Amino acid sequence: MIPTILIPLAPGYEEMEGVILADVWRRAGWKVDMVSLAPGPVIASRGVRLLPDAEWSAIHPDRYDILALPGGMGGTEALCADTRILDAVRTFDRHPDKWLIAICAAPLVLQAAGILNPERQVTCHPAVADRLTAAKRRSERTVRDGHLITSQGPGTAFELALMLVALLRGQQEADRLAAGLLVPSPKVEI
Amino acid sequence: MIPTILIPLAPGYEEMEGVILADVWRRAGWKVDMVSLAPGPVIASRGVRLLPDAEWSAIHPDRYDILALPGGMGGTEALCADTRILDAVRTFDRHPDKWLIAICAAPLVLQAAGILNPERQVTCHPAVADRLTAAKRRSERTVRDGHLITSQGPGTAFELALMLVALLRGQQEADRLAAGLLVPSPKVEI
Repeated sequence: MIPTILIPLAPGYEEMEGVILADVWRRAGWKVDMVSLAPGPVIASRGVRLLPDAEWSAIHPDRYDILALPGGMGGTEALCADTRILDAVRTFDRHPDKWLIAICAAPLVLQAAGILNPERQVTCHPAVADRLTAAKRRSERTVRDGHLITSQGPGTAFELALMLVALLRGQQEADRLAAGLLVPSPKVEI
Repeated sequence: MIPTILIPLAPGYEEMEGVILADVWRRAGWKVDMVSLAPGPVIASRGVRLLPDAEWSAIHPDRYDILALPGGMGGTEALCADTRILDAVRTFDRHPDKWLIAICAAPLVLQAAGILNPERQVTCHPAVADRLTAAKRRSERTVRDGHLITSQGPGTAFELALMLVALLRGQQEADRLAAGLLVPSPKVEI
């Protein structure tokens, strides 16, 4: 089974985070769709213009295994304001066999969807930490709590992507990808 | 003076490298143009489709301060086969006040342009190291030799980008950007 991953791209998303997650998981042979919320190219936080693989209205979010939310303040605010995204977050969270991933400011989307509580452990970009009040906030760069993985920012995107590879495909596959990427391989306790 | 940076994007370029360099330097307030070699979107090595800021025929390469070549095997081969790129590499190399940057497989473009020699020190992705024979190849992740900076791959793109920030704007500015990116700041001896 090849994992299928849905990466929603709202205007102002952090382009390094979106592209690193998509690229690393495609290197793993997984099916990644970068999906816009509206027609046309998506302009990211630092002006990179990307043509999405599909538009949200043309996909079925429930059919994906993994929902991965890139950060960036503008993108995060747009995701928080989109009921389709908040619905998808709640749907993914109801399925323990699916994965829910958010990086940088995007853990705020999990909060906006109402799925956090003081028992759940998350991390986020230090710049938005004060606003992430609904969950137990941790200081680690990447935090896994059940099927929820959160991470801090552009510089933690590689380890976040590889952590999921290690969880789904084993440490050896994560190590193989890490070597080609020239990054340290995250050691994951499974 | 705001540095101006030209990033040529050929089909098959490594999208993480192109986007990380552009994003980090734009965070520094620099002017970055991602420029395609032909009309239309550019499809990168893992399928990310990017709309360039301009097409090569519409720009004046000599007016930029920095030429930065992303890697990716397909992109590198396309750059090596394009006389406009090879000419630009030679022009930048003749100006000691300009910077010439290549990452991953792209140091092969410097070799194709004929600007390397056994006195010049470079690094590259380990997968193409055997083909980079014209210069003194080093094993460091990022290597500076005069106005030439080379680096090994996606996982070294942050430190490459920040090294240039440290060289042009000082260590403090590199440290500031590194903190927001959640990456270690490279210590540069200037």
